[in-house]
Amino acid sequence: MYSIVILGSGNVATHMFQALQSSKTCSVIQVYNHKRSSLLKFENSVPLTTDISALKPADLYLICLKDDVIESTAEQIKTKAGIIAHTSGNQGLLTSPKNSGVFYPLQTFSKTSELDYSTIPFCLEANSEENLSLLKSIALSISQHQYEISTTQRQTLHLAAVFVCNFTNHLYAIGEDICLQDDIPFDILKALIKETSDKVQSQSPSEVQTGPAVRNDEKTITNHLKQLNSKDYKAIYNLMTTSILKKHDKL
Amino acid sequence: MYSIVILGSGNVATHMFQALQSSKTCSVIQVYNHKRSSLLKFENSVPLTTDISALKPADLYLICLKDDVIESTAEQIKTKAGIIAHTSGNQGLLTSPKNSGVFYPLQTFSKTSELDYSTIPFCLEANSEENLSLLKSIALSISQHQYEISTTQRQTLHLAAVFVCNFTNHLYAIGEDICLQDDIPFDILKALIKETSDKVQSQSPSEVQTGPAVRNDEKTITNHLKQLNSKDYKAIYNLMTTSILKKHDKL
Repeated sequence: MYSIVILGSGNVATHMFQALQSSKTCSVIQVYNHKRSSLLKFENSVPLTTDISALKPADLYLICLKDDVIESTAEQIKTKAGIIAHTSGNQGLLTSPKNSGVFYPLQTFSKTSELDYSTIPFCLEANSEENLSLLKSIALSISQHQYEISTTQRQTLHLAAVFVCNFTNHLYAIGEDICLQDDIPFDILKALIKETSDKVQSQSPSEVQTGPAVRNDEKTITNHLKQLNSKDYKAIYNLMTTSILKKHDKL
Repeated sequence: MYSIVILGSGNVATHMFQALQSSKTCSVIQVYNHKRSSLLKFENSVPLTTDISALKPADLYLICLKDDVIESTAEQIKTKAGIIAHTSGNQGLLTSPKNSGVFYPLQTFSKTSELDYSTIPFCLEANSEENLSLLKSIALSISQHQYEISTTQRQTLHLAAVFVCNFTNHLYAIGEDICLQDDIPFDILKALIKETSDKVQSQSPSEVQTGPAVRNDEKTITNHLKQLNSKDYKAIYNLMTTSILKKHDKL
């Protein structure tokens, strides 16, 4: 049984807690956060502490904190024997601890969404083969999908994730905005949103591009630009259309 | 049993043919296209014609042709007794036929994708209550999701669909590009893509926005812009980030 201390109490910490607690080979033995109030949601399910000098001995200290406090937190616990790993897409491997690693779950975590943890890809990195192997075993207890990924590759992945997740969600929000302006329920778009993401599960997105831009259908493009009231949405429409035209050698 | 003649042989025509043929209350009795070669895929499954004056009597003539030939095609068959309907998101109700309608399936149709037709939302419009009611019955034989939508609303929906489908797919393609530049398999992003679209099936996209923009995480945004080599992708990153900041009152 791998013993794990989680540092943090945000969305990533909460989901990692749930995922690890439900695995058969891991046990979260403590959750730390400097603010007592943030730990309330874990109450009665695991020992808690607000004192970083009171962390229990564990195989893994999983730092699920904001990027800008990861290093300073690791510094404070660097003498621990267990692996000190963070869950960030951007930060490099920690240099102060003897045993360090990265345990980056490539997923979007919200308070309200229930997740199937077994589909999460884990991007792993460690400062030794032995540490990597232990991180692999722990990740494997949650999901079959694990990748050994360097810091540079992880930063690239995080950037790509912003495009396919954060920007995509904003396009959904724009779609909702446009619908609501004309009293159309956003529900009508949901099957289309699902199919668009389903399609690229088995096919390359550049091969399944549809719509007026890739057809170079100037009449529809002109009409759409006329329909848009928002200057910002118009700019996004123009830029995305030009980018699609270029990618498909139509410009 | 409703008898239907399909005009066209592209993706929409092919999917509508399959959807209608597998329904219990509809029968596609003929497919028309002016080019014989385009009809080959329907051979042996339905009577075919390249002669528009040889269309059989039917309850519905479903024009699944490009926007710019819909009206001229309808003009040629305007004396038919059945309803003449098109499947376009942009075109208004046809004015020349006595019985006219719109039968717009709001979905992205590719050659290679198998679709669950029962989830497709049909946006319907007709020039009489009787014609609307017949279109409803036919749509109902495929899917439970049908909406009475005006031409203006349909054009708005088509515009919104470009954002949530075509532009979203292009963001996936950019994500793939970014990954491949660093030898990372696009596969790692697939769970994230799925979860991003799953989340808005039950929640409003503006309420589940995540990422550096909505957090106003300037350090990460600056790093991401440095990582991007492509001028176009940099412009898209900037514009989408600004748009998210504005929508969430961070700017």
